Amino acid sequence: MSVTAPAAPNVQQWHELAQQFRVDSIRCSTAAGSGHPTSSMSAADLMAVLLASHLRYDFDNPANPNNDHLIFSKGHASPLLYSVYKAAGAIGDGELMAFRKFGSRTQGHPVPILPWVDVATGSLGQGLPIAVGVALAGKYLDKLPYRMWVLLGDSEMAEGSQWEAFDHASHYELDNLTAILDMNRLGQRGPTELQWDGGAYAARAKAFGWHPIEIDGHDLAAIDRAYSEAASHRGQPTLVIAKTKKGAGVSFLEDKEGWHGKALKPDEADKAIQELGGQRSIVIQVRKPEALQPTHVEAKPVQLPRYKPGDEIATRKAYGEALKALGDALPDVVALDGEVSNSTYAEDFAHAHPDRYFEQYIAEQAMVAAAVGLSVRHKVCFASTFAAFFSRAYDFIRMAAISRAHLRLCGSHAGVSIGEDGPSQMALEDLAMMRAVWGSTVLYPSDANQTAHLVEEMAHHPGISFLRTTREKTPVIYEPDDKFPVGGLKVVRGSAEDKCTVVGAGITLHQALQAYEQLKSEGISIRVVDLYSVKPVDGETLRRCVKETGGRLVTVEDHWAEGGIGDAVLEALTNQGGAVPSALTRLAVRDMPGSGKPQELLDAAGIGSKAIVEAVKKLVR
Amino acid sequence: MSVTAPAAPNVQQWHELAQQFRVDSIRCSTAAGSGHPTSSMSAADLMAVLLASHLRYDFDNPANPNNDHLIFSKGHASPLLYSVYKAAGAIGDGELMAFRKFGSRTQGHPVPILPWVDVATGSLGQGLPIAVGVALAGKYLDKLPYRMWVLLGDSEMAEGSQWEAFDHASHYELDNLTAILDMNRLGQRGPTELQWDGGAYAARAKAFGWHPIEIDGHDLAAIDRAYSEAASHRGQPTLVIAKTKKGAGVSFLEDKEGWHGKALKPDEADKAIQELGGQRSIVIQVRKPEALQPTHVEAKPVQLPRYKPGDEIATRKAYGEALKALGDALPDVVALDGEVSNSTYAEDFAHAHPDRYFEQYIAEQAMVAAAVGLSVRHKVCFASTFAAFFSRAYDFIRMAAISRAHLRLCGSHAGVSIGEDGPSQMALEDLAMMRAVWGSTVLYPSDANQTAHLVEEMAHHPGISFLRTTREKTPVIYEPDDKFPVGGLKVVRGSAEDKCTVVGAGITLHQALQAYEQLKSEGISIRVVDLYSVKPVDGETLRRCVKETGGRLVTVEDHWAEGGIGDAVLEALTNQGGAVPSALTRLAVRDMPGSGKPQELLDAAGIGSKAIVEAVKKLVR
Repeated sequence: MSVTAPAAPNVQQWHELAQQFRVDSIRCSTAAGSGHPTSSMSAADLMAVLLASHLRYDFDNPANPNNDHLIFSKGHASPLLYSVYKAAGAIGDGELMAFRKFGSRTQGHPVPILPWVDVATGSLGQGLPIAVGVALAGKYLDKLPYRMWVLLGDSEMAEGSQWEAFDHASHYELDNLTAILDMNRLGQRGPTELQWDGGAYAARAKAFGWHPIEIDGHDLAAIDRAYSEAASHRGQPTLVIAKTKKGAGVSFLEDKEGWHGKALKPDEADKAIQELGGQRSIVIQVRKPEALQPTHVEAKPVQLPRYKPGDEIATRKAYGEALKALGDALPDVVALDGEVSNSTYAEDFAHAHPDRYFEQYIAEQAMVAAAVGLSVRHKVCFASTFAAFFSRAYDFIRMAAISRAHLRLCGSHAGVSIGEDGPSQMALEDLAMMRAVWGSTVLYPSDANQTAHLVEEMAHHPGISFLRTTREKTPVIYEPDDKFPVGGLKVVRGSAEDKCTVVGAGITLHQALQAYEQLKSEGISIRVVDLYSVKPVDGETLRRCVKETGGRLVTVEDHWAEGGIGDAVLEALTNQGGAVPSALTRLAVRDMPGSGKPQELLDAAGIGSKAIVEAVKKLVR
Repeated sequence: MSVTAPAAPNVQQWHELAQQFRVDSIRCSTAAGSGHPTSSMSAADLMAVLLASHLRYDFDNPANPNNDHLIFSKGHASPLLYSVYKAAGAIGDGELMAFRKFGSRTQGHPVPILPWVDVATGSLGQGLPIAVGVALAGKYLDKLPYRMWVLLGDSEMAEGSQWEAFDHASHYELDNLTAILDMNRLGQRGPTELQWDGGAYAARAKAFGWHPIEIDGHDLAAIDRAYSEAASHRGQPTLVIAKTKKGAGVSFLEDKEGWHGKALKPDEADKAIQELGGQRSIVIQVRKPEALQPTHVEAKPVQLPRYKPGDEIATRKAYGEALKALGDALPDVVALDGEVSNSTYAEDFAHAHPDRYFEQYIAEQAMVAAAVGLSVRHKVCFASTFAAFFSRAYDFIRMAAISRAHLRLCGSHAGVSIGEDGPSQMALEDLAMMRAVWGSTVLYPSDANQTAHLVEEMAHHPGISFLRTTREKTPVIYEPDDKFPVGGLKVVRGSAEDKCTVVGAGITLHQALQAYEQLKSEGISIRVVDLYSVKPVDGETLRRCVKETGGRLVTVEDHWAEGGIGDAVLEALTNQGGAVPSALTRLAVRDMPGSGKPQELLDAAGIGSKAIVEAVKKLVR
């Protein structure tokens, strides 16, 4: 049976489509031998009405800027999503049935190698906060009428990130956002906390400023009415709380425990498909959006701030000024900050471009997620907080890499050199964390001119980039026109007499320069390398430096000993074989710091100039 | 003036105490030249009534198991906390005035080197979720009447982790928990999102199952009544929503913007102290708790599960069985899991010891926080989820290290070898993340007997330990009585003929053993090392192995190339100088994986046995 449904379907047509989704979800997961058919079946009616009657999407042109967005936050319901794509004519039955197979685009959880998928999901509680970013773009930047639809699981409502998203979505009055809660009562290992207590979800949503609508999620007409109400409701986002049954439509699956994440065996699948009325091959002509154009503003040449060598300025301040300068020139640059913009200096941008700045309050998960959502809409989004607090959003950064998102993160207040505030505010693991993100770029400037150039590099650099800035003022050591390509390094001091290479970055570069002067006065010449690009590392130049300085190397970093500059340097030096360096000392923070003055703490951690002098002497002797 | 307040103070006495807190908060921060006096002043009345009339605490014996607990979730109000300690006679004025100085216990944010501090705070949104763990211990394990008091800031209510805690606290009916919200309207960079909208906070708390009480936070009698109501309210935790003014008590600070995190200059301080009525030296006799004993059950010898070499069993399953065995023997062992206990096999413990298992639903931040809180009450707490999802709680793990907490974390489903579910479920950065935690122990077993022993080691090991388990079944290769000390390794295959050392762990150890057989059949002998202790690494044995095998080394890990086994091995080999190894290949995951069969994905990532064979041949040739 092949039917092309009309533009205004009736209940029977929605039902047929929903049954097809159920059948296809079972077919593909049974063929794969794994997957989540029952979590797909509960939401089949919800998606049938959406696809046939509410979604506006040009499946032939996923890049159409007017398309609605549909994110499956419950990414494990991927069989349903792929069934939707098949019914929309986007993929064929072959690709559906290649579900979870090696090399297939129809992976276990959705990833954007399928062009209709905005972002990877599968780590729960991420779809909604990302959707907030997309909806922000729609309402405030693109100013286009596309709608953001998100399918939520009920188990994931336990994630705090959901409530950050609820909070931000109402704060920004995102009436272009509709979340559909598939309240199927059963989680992975048994009942969810709130089971079918739709009133509890509604009360929470209402308290967080949303418009909740409770419905029977298998009543097709009620679903249709709810979506219409959501679309016309102004000033608030809407949560459609749909009471559903996991495995709905098949008697031996419906609302039964023990079926989470389990494919049916072939004979069970046959039985279930029979009960669902057999296979169908409905293809829907999904309604296309209007042909509107997002506001377009011409870009201008970037005029970076210029700093005078010898002046003292914190790299965090240079970040703010460079970001403002980017904003002046590039209309797609957007900034977010987690309620510390007067510390990270994102406020420089916020004051100059309030229409492109979105305060994220103290909600780092929501902030990174919103940046991912803005990246979906091709914004060049910078997000900042203390580097230590990006650890709060690590799962979001990890997932952003799977989403192939372009993220620019700036973490300030790196290391013990922040001083009196103590260890809770000191980023000492951020380099390790950010290096271990797929395809990431990790930058750590030591002066203001370098910072400004690296911020501009980030705007044009694909993937996830991270800039680590320093709280304390440091002297400007480079000229405004010096170049700092990603993947490079600077030899700041060097001569043919050098006996040892010292690699530092950020605050420790300045300690190394002090050590240079001290050692020079004692007749020992060292080569000082500024490793401003911690990932990728210029291993070739580094190897040459170490060879030219007798194989001796000292690395020094304001970071724990694991996963940071020491590891990065050693990896780069050895990735084409071994035997370099022949003598090595790694200076890093090894004991838990406390409060104190920056230099006291650098010295106590053994990463100050005195420690560098001692380490060099020990190797050179 | 020196006054010892009576047991039942009146409003005037509370007021005097509160003014002393304000004065002392100003004095110590002005002496330090930094800190948060105004954020302390807003909550001074709240803490005066608590200390004088509600807290039950034996300050001479902070280890008294009956003591109430007081956590300043808004850790930046440390001047107030130290002023409280001073008024309780716990510290002297000298220590107060050493605030933020190098070597002082009165650090910028509270840390438990002060014995009355339970946990480090300063990363916002952590105090309440940790308090949930303490309150769980009080109500369900210790069964003692101590109360848990938490001081919350209003800015931190934007953190999702707060709402995870609200949810869990009501789910577990924690009526021994009172949270006091210092709603002072002003955040770091300006007004908070909800400012003085106490009704909004009350609605959210109510929707999350709490008992909210709204008061004027400077009305001392109202504060007293609210605490009494909180203490007598049954079945629900209470949120006291106290409308306060930042900088309260001093005309030029009160409710003024621009004073966050700013110490007063000496002349400003003099003026403020004068307005507050000058210095006082009140010392309060804080009411001591009753002398009760927590339930005590004798420990028995642990009977670990024993597995037959050659049998196939997943290390995650061995984790569950070993944890259950620990629970059988050790009454202080407690387990938490994030709604995946049937995948991590924490369910084996949950079924056997339901009274010591607390379901955390899908809320990893709350889970790790609760484990920290349980650790405060000396429980031996194991917490598990997919290793990938511990990235959600990285900030909590980082802070737990500053808290000197004893945490046992088990992350399952490591690496690409999980197969079809795809990258969102694959932990590929967990080793990097966990190595870069201060004082951490990182364990990665390859067989069931080893897993069981390591789980027992973790129970007795201080600090933060992390066990990485594998989804797939792997053959048992060790005897049940083999020993696996933390910091050790196993040479699984070795002879004098070995031409290369291959270091693997977990799933890749088995790939290395297959490579061994293949290479052996081709006449090439390799040494296979099982690096089950990824941190600390037994560098000495490793160095010997590499030397004895011609300086050749292959590392192979189911993890990104950064921060994992490759970095750990290289660090250990070079930390006493360089030049080892002379030839090195690091096999790790470098491209983004998709779905597929485990062996397909291992081979595609270049970390399967074939890749190991090739890498060895290339080095040996």
